[in-house]
Amino acid sequence: MTFDSISLPEVANLVVGILGGTGDQGKGLAYRFARAGQRVVVGSRSAERGVEAAAAIAAMPGVTGMVTGAANPAAAEASDVVIVAVPWEGHADTVAGLRQPLAGKVVVDCVNPLGFDAKGPYPLRVPEGSAAEQTESLLPESRVCAAFHHVSAALLADPAVDRVEVDVLVLGDDRDAVGVVSALAGRIPGMRGVYAGRLRNAAQVEALTANLIAINRRYQAHAGIRITDLD
Amino acid sequence: MTFDSISLPEVANLVVGILGGTGDQGKGLAYRFARAGQRVVVGSRSAERGVEAAAAIAAMPGVTGMVTGAANPAAAEASDVVIVAVPWEGHADTVAGLRQPLAGKVVVDCVNPLGFDAKGPYPLRVPEGSAAEQTESLLPESRVCAAFHHVSAALLADPAVDRVEVDVLVLGDDRDAVGVVSALAGRIPGMRGVYAGRLRNAAQVEALTANLIAINRRYQAHAGIRITDLD
Repeated sequence: MTFDSISLPEVANLVVGILGGTGDQGKGLAYRFARAGQRVVVGSRSAERGVEAAAAIAAMPGVTGMVTGAANPAAAEASDVVIVAVPWEGHADTVAGLRQPLAGKVVVDCVNPLGFDAKGPYPLRVPEGSAAEQTESLLPESRVCAAFHHVSAALLADPAVDRVEVDVLVLGDDRDAVGVVSALAGRIPGMRGVYAGRLRNAAQVEALTANLIAINRRYQAHAGIRITDLD
Repeated sequence: MTFDSISLPEVANLVVGILGGTGDQGKGLAYRFARAGQRVVVGSRSAERGVEAAAAIAAMPGVTGMVTGAANPAAAEASDVVIVAVPWEGHADTVAGLRQPLAGKVVVDCVNPLGFDAKGPYPLRVPEGSAAEQTESLLPESRVCAAFHHVSAALLADPAVDRVEVDVLVLGDDRDAVGVVSALAGRIPGMRGVYAGRLRNAAQVEALTANLIAINRRYQAHAGIRITDLD
């Protein structure tokens, strides 16, 4: 079995909601999905800021998908797949408040719980194990995956970057949901979604972002990862 | 600053010791270093098994460096740089017993503390944070780094594989030691040593091996990683 022989579902018609879509990572992902032709709803704590961000993204080069904005609950309601890209500080509260609109949906956590001090970045301890497992515990009716942790927000947001050449590690216990998320990653040129284990193995994937930041600082790069020996 | 402009020290004359050199990972690394022309000492709990493994490696295709075997303490004594590749179960005991011969030396921990159950691999909790930090706490006079976690033992051991196309994440707080380890990784064709943060960020690098095992099982691969945007 090779990477290419893993069949993925058709996802072009799914609406992608992005909670925290006004932050760097959320906005960057919203842009790339809209540029890939996906229908995108940008969620924010305030509907007004969501609408503003959506208008800004819709005006960016190459966007072909419709982009609208809303408050987080309405964005969750309107979407088929919902990416959680809120700051770690408000993560639990935001997620817990959306249990109803997110029930039954594929929810993709991409949050990296990191701290920073004089020595640089380091992973924060999360009682549930990881941000993704916290989401899983708060959304028992949702199909929770983790993905999109290592994608440079700077590259996502740069219209001159045609291809985002990285692998997205997709974690989850629901195989169909993992397939949907992997297929979505594959909609962005250069990106591949690679299944990388169950949700209980999400903590180190989130924490690895600290290492990528250290790499970026040493080499002045926008580091991501590729998995080798997958063709 | 680009990856290539990071200057690395000359390491061709250093003797590389490998504790646990009779295990899969240790033997594979010993082979690759010997094939790169490095002088290698294979350490084992028993001197006899170390000598046997060394003879087997010396007879493998392409080996140009001298390979000898010894008990772990003698291997540590005889080497400039010492790679710890012992099973996690005996890690603390083995390392603690070698404080004297490892004093002042560059010690490279490549151990992945993993558990396995019906759901597959998962990271074990380590009181010190990571195997590498455990080593650091047991060897206060050594210059401890972490590296070589994600290199497939199967690829290392396969003489038909000319180039091992992976990046080795090198972690450590001693910048010169990190340079030595990165340069050693670079001696193996296809491999790059990439600085990836301080030792306090080693846990997730060790644990990521669980994700690579999940990838290997899903895609029947020998997965490793490459860091993108480093040229």
